[in-house]
Amino acid sequence: MPNPTAAMLVIGDEILSGRTRDANMHHLAGALAKAGIDLVEVRVLPDRPDRLVPAIREMAAAHDHLFTSGGIGPTHDDITADCVAEAMGAPIDVRDDARAILQAHYDRSGQELNAARLRMARVPDGAELIDNPISAAPGFSLRNVHVMAGVPTIFEAMVASLLPRLTGGTPLLSQSLRIERGEGDIAGPLAELAAEYQDLSFGSYPFNRDGIYGANVVVRGSDAARVDAALVRLSELFPDAVA
Amino acid sequence: MPNPTAAMLVIGDEILSGRTRDANMHHLAGALAKAGIDLVEVRVLPDRPDRLVPAIREMAAAHDHLFTSGGIGPTHDDITADCVAEAMGAPIDVRDDARAILQAHYDRSGQELNAARLRMARVPDGAELIDNPISAAPGFSLRNVHVMAGVPTIFEAMVASLLPRLTGGTPLLSQSLRIERGEGDIAGPLAELAAEYQDLSFGSYPFNRDGIYGANVVVRGSDAARVDAALVRLSELFPDAVA
Repeated sequence: MPNPTAAMLVIGDEILSGRTRDANMHHLAGALAKAGIDLVEVRVLPDRPDRLVPAIREMAAAHDHLFTSGGIGPTHDDITADCVAEAMGAPIDVRDDARAILQAHYDRSGQELNAARLRMARVPDGAELIDNPISAAPGFSLRNVHVMAGVPTIFEAMVASLLPRLTGGTPLLSQSLRIERGEGDIAGPLAELAAEYQDLSFGSYPFNRDGIYGANVVVRGSDAARVDAALVRLSELFPDAVA
Repeated sequence: MPNPTAAMLVIGDEILSGRTRDANMHHLAGALAKAGIDLVEVRVLPDRPDRLVPAIREMAAAHDHLFTSGGIGPTHDDITADCVAEAMGAPIDVRDDARAILQAHYDRSGQELNAARLRMARVPDGAELIDNPISAAPGFSLRNVHVMAGVPTIFEAMVASLLPRLTGGTPLLSQSLRIERGEGDIAGPLAELAAEYQDLSFGSYPFNRDGIYGANVVVRGSDAARVDAALVRLSELFPDAVA
């Protein structure tokens, strides 16, 4: 059975304007590879409902899972929950379970659960909450759409809460070999090997640092014995390479 | 006149698998903001023609510019040039001008311009070359699609070669204020200010470090006087904030 597929939607003007460098894509990609869920598309879009709603609808329909990052805080630019509800045709309002979590959190810290903070309890009908051990305001899963915060520490904690309840597949394994030869000399033998091992994927990532150049060749697949066998062949083709 | 819009397509299994953290998106986002070209969408897709060709076609049609990163080296997984040619309906083959650049480069370094390296001279008919001062193999612009390398140093050099020949608009200006108060206390006044200054965009980016929490509020727009005026108002609302 093939692995489940996933897409990610990163929401935020701050990334498109160059102000902030996204960190969540790299974290999620690594976590999904370990879980055996194949990440096949990422999009970064601005905080605009006319852009987000159709993208959420399209990406949720095309993949087994859609993970979102960003736009679930208390301020006016936090529109993700409402956009997901609209895209998925679910009613949304302040929900008692989410409100109780926020109330307990702000009671502990002596802050007021005001109207702005209460927006973070807006959760679509039928969604399952995702625990936020850092700042309380929960994420949620609405069918196959998983809505999480953009702040990296909170995003990572939510991914850790969420992943154990999703059904994964076979983890993606990878091994790499560092070959200090021009990529143009590696290309021919590598293409032949890739044709022979069609169940694996072969990537070549050139480097050029301090006058030393070459490429890291990465072999990826879900069958450990096949990945090992391909790596042995690759080492025979390039005897000076370093694992 | 509104600024030109742009999309970016990052091509690479290595980013989706979590092996490599993309750096080019953040670099391009900053460079486009300075040039007055509005980046409104980024996608990351795997090295697969069936995914790339329709995305290139759709993104090139929807935006004034499409910038691509990755997949233009000599190895079998470098398929970007052919996918762009197919998406845009342009013939592609080894082109004499690109071949001459590669020949001169490999003659200087005493390496052979073999069949694999010659693939890097495959450029669609009618495309304009983008200079690569680092490793010679050129990028190209085919109409509004700008094809560049994925290695960050080369990508950045190509962006520097390319941007001066594109017509930009008004640079996006931004100013920010660090407010050490809970985002839930900032949200109300900020929403009112955003409603008043509808030509500007207001973002709130929470932080929580070493027990100090608050948010950086960023005001963005193309009219410096308006951005300044909004920042003065914001400082009055939050007198303890730090620019």
